Amino acid sequence: MIYSLSQLAEMLDAEFHGNPDTKILGLCPLDEVSSDFLVFADSAEHMKTAFASSAAAVILSKKPDDATKPVIISEYPLMAFAQLISVFYPDIEKAPGIHPTAYIGAHVKLGQNVHIGPYAIVEDHCEIGDKVVIHAHAVIREHCQIGEACEIHPHVTIYPRTSLDKKVIIHAGTTIGSDGFGYRFIHGVHHKLPHAGSVVIGANVEIGANTVVDRATLGTTRIGQGTKIDNLVQIAHSVKIGEHNIICAFTGIAGSSSTGNNVVLAANVGISDHVRIEDQVTLGARTGVAPKKVLKKGITYLGNPARPKEKALEHELSSTRIPYMRKHISKMQERLLELEQKIAQMTAEIE
Amino acid sequence: MIYSLSQLAEMLDAEFHGNPDTKILGLCPLDEVSSDFLVFADSAEHMKTAFASSAAAVILSKKPDDATKPVIISEYPLMAFAQLISVFYPDIEKAPGIHPTAYIGAHVKLGQNVHIGPYAIVEDHCEIGDKVVIHAHAVIREHCQIGEACEIHPHVTIYPRTSLDKKVIIHAGTTIGSDGFGYRFIHGVHHKLPHAGSVVIGANVEIGANTVVDRATLGTTRIGQGTKIDNLVQIAHSVKIGEHNIICAFTGIAGSSSTGNNVVLAANVGISDHVRIEDQVTLGARTGVAPKKVLKKGITYLGNPARPKEKALEHELSSTRIPYMRKHISKMQERLLELEQKIAQMTAEIE
Amino acid sequence: MIYSLSQLAEMLDAEFHGNPDTKILGLCPLDEVSSDFLVFADSAEHMKTAFASSAAAVILSKKPDDATKPVIISEYPLMAFAQLISVFYPDIEKAPGIHPTAYIGAHVKLGQNVHIGPYAIVEDHCEIGDKVVIHAHAVIREHCQIGEACEIHPHVTIYPRTSLDKKVIIHAGTTIGSDGFGYRFIHGVHHKLPHAGSVVIGANVEIGANTVVDRATLGTTRIGQGTKIDNLVQIAHSVKIGEHNIICAFTGIAGSSSTGNNVVLAANVGISDHVRIEDQVTLGARTGVAPKKVLKKGITYLGNPARPKEKALEHELSSTRIPYMRKHISKMQERLLELEQKIAQMTAEIE
Repeated sequence: MIYSLSQLAEMLDAEFHGNPDTKILGLCPLDEVSSDFLVFADSAEHMKTAFASSAAAVILSKKPDDATKPVIISEYPLMAFAQLISVFYPDIEKAPGIHPTAYIGAHVKLGQNVHIGPYAIVEDHCEIGDKVVIHAHAVIREHCQIGEACEIHPHVTIYPRTSLDKKVIIHAGTTIGSDGFGYRFIHGVHHKLPHAGSVVIGANVEIGANTVVDRATLGTTRIGQGTKIDNLVQIAHSVKIGEHNIICAFTGIAGSSSTGNNVVLAANVGISDHVRIEDQVTLGARTGVAPKKVLKKGITYLGNPARPKEKALEHELSSTRIPYMRKHISKMQERLLELEQKIAQMTAEIE
Repeated sequence: MIYSLSQLAEMLDAEFHGNPDTKILGLCPLDEVSSDFLVFADSAEHMKTAFASSAAAVILSKKPDDATKPVIISEYPLMAFAQLISVFYPDIEKAPGIHPTAYIGAHVKLGQNVHIGPYAIVEDHCEIGDKVVIHAHAVIREHCQIGEACEIHPHVTIYPRTSLDKKVIIHAGTTIGSDGFGYRFIHGVHHKLPHAGSVVIGANVEIGANTVVDRATLGTTRIGQGTKIDNLVQIAHSVKIGEHNIICAFTGIAGSSSTGNNVVLAANVGISDHVRIEDQVTLGARTGVAPKKVLKKGITYLGNPARPKEKALEHELSSTRIPYMRKHISKMQERLLELEQKIAQMTAEIE
Repeated sequence: MIYSLSQLAEMLDAEFHGNPDTKILGLCPLDEVSSDFLVFADSAEHMKTAFASSAAAVILSKKPDDATKPVIISEYPLMAFAQLISVFYPDIEKAPGIHPTAYIGAHVKLGQNVHIGPYAIVEDHCEIGDKVVIHAHAVIREHCQIGEACEIHPHVTIYPRTSLDKKVIIHAGTTIGSDGFGYRFIHGVHHKLPHAGSVVIGANVEIGANTVVDRATLGTTRIGQGTKIDNLVQIAHSVKIGEHNIICAFTGIAGSSSTGNNVVLAANVGISDHVRIEDQVTLGARTGVAPKKVLKKGITYLGNPARPKEKALEHELSSTRIPYMRKHISKMQERLLELEQKIAQMTAEIE
């Protein structure tokens, strides 16, 4: 598919400058540029790179005076670019239909225009909303509710009684609703606690690949709408995640902890049990939070144990000063000794 | 299902106080209380919360003098509560039977009352014990032994020659017996070592979701009876885990390391290769252990590198004192300078 | 299978000493020795252990003068041992053939002598090379290319447009080509970026179990030939991994970072986005690298933040000195006070 600059601008309902017939063969990222392709730039630095590259044209937020290539102007260049990605490289659509090898249990309610792929499993008493896509080899256990237009990728396992609101995406290999890690140690043996609770996931949540969300002993593990979870994340039993959170890879949240809305957890963050994180908190990569802590609204924390950013940086900086401090101490000890000797001598002289 | 207080107490063979006809509609956790539901309390704090809540009744270990609600008395309130969870919210039982789409290889021995779900795979020469449940989409490769009453969840892969003792539970997406990460670097290329060993898992072990246990080059990777392993854990080739261990999420144990009995590894612990951990050791979250270390019986270690708890806390505390130390040093430098000047002046005066 | 010492030496084309008829029943590791079995030793310490054990014979690189057991001499004892592992414990071979329950989509090109197991899925427009083994329950989405003699284990998911060169091994539960974790936050909502890029994996790459490699928004996520990746690793979108890297468990590499050739990343290393790691760099366990850093060729880094090894060790050592420094400071304060008092007294006396 080849489009002209003016055709693309029209699709975006955007202003453009330069030859309207400029041919665009595709889109490319700034670090793998092909000529006759379109790139986007959302910073001064990217703009410079873009104009210096062999790209055919650039999407950016404001026309520069010295533009040396055709440009398309958009308030959000990346989102405009994303829109064009779907034009040039449309997703592989799964047509509605239940594959004859899919296993559908008893008392299952299927919505309109559902796709269920080969060997997928939907066990008894599930409700599947309209336009849901369940890929080959997904397993949905009993009594689950899958909302409208959800997409469940291969090798996902959803344990019984899980509920997904609409437009939830779950990537391959992820497990939702497995038993929480709960035992009671009595007379030398760890006794398993039953997990009869459920997992409830809000609308527009996306969960990456090979992640795990455990279900609660009783009550719910909850993930608020709009939250995005990366690959290889661990959400333990009874955790409550707020809305529009970002949770990066290798982050683990232990039992009964909660986050507010718009919380950002960078990679490999460790949150112990019964922690409460208020709205708009950000935790830097590898931050560690001890049990029962409360992290205050809007603050950025770093380090292990977690400290507000300024304190954490001061602490980090301090620790790099230790070698200098050791030199200072050593030098001062010499000076002290010298003084002590002088005074001893003076005292002797005076006497 | 609705039960009366006296009916529940009878099931538990437990003492109760208050109206025997109190209706109990279900169970709930203390942070999501519903009226007409039963809660449990195993600390003074929980007891206070429980009595202040709208719950219908409380299970606790000792009748308080000022009980304001009906109570059931049990030595282990949580375990009694767990027993009632199974009454109110029984597990979804999988009836014995081999689903017609399950693939059973040649020379497989199946015990009595086995459940094998749709599309599950049991390859050649496996032995499956009585009352085993193999869920849809589990894959069990050749020459495996699955002991009595084990439960294998969907999307588990068990590589050849793995042996599970009785009542082992393996959650969805977990891989048992994959090749260890072993190569030899010769002439610029990493040469793969074959992995012909096996994994042997003891009775009553439970392994969470999306965890990996590798098999050995030769010999065995072994997990002792009663040990409980969380989600997203990595157990490398030839590791020997003792009995009744607790191993939390994101913990990794490298090749040929071993733990004794009753060891606790909190989350995100990293144990290098050839480490020996003796009985009853506890490692706090994020503890790191260098290769070939020996951790001594009964001691709690923290930090990276791992230090006995007291030293680790002292070290941690010390490092928070650095800013103060810097101030002290700075102040002392001023005082020294002042003294040096005074003495120089005195010396001059004396002369 | 029983072999004599001389038969084994002949297979290896290697020199041997001792009774040529010595019966060898199998191979064993040095920490689980059985009599009548063969062991290998590649260090002075292992040699001592081997000769003191009940093993029947030893493979080593040089005949010791005081050998007390039959020996086989090989330049690379471990590799010779590995060769014999394949003799005594041959892999379970999967015979060529497409299982009748395998799902093969439209326009799929299958090479010669391919094995596709029960319930495996190969979707439309894939190309599968000669001698490829696709185990039961692997899912390969549309437009993938799987090179000659690749082995794809159960429950692997390969997303559309992924390309594997020859002899790639992917272990169970691993996900290749899932959408990168990319959103743009506009007006309170995280907008998903489409991921239309691909993953390209070089020859002889091996990827462990339950690992994830994301595909790029555009362009490629690339893994160079000969690189070996452990279990539970996260490779984010647009990452470029060089050739012959070693990447251990729980290591995460964020978007658009790159490594050169022969890079070693020990366990639980965290690499932020847009990092550039040059050839032959080694990162120790738990090293953390901040965004946009460049790590220089051939250097070993440790710690978080990553520092060249010498500096990191100095820093680590320094921090263990803090308690001593505190004592020194305290002692110096006393001495200073004493001096100040003496001088005050002397000044008074002089006046």
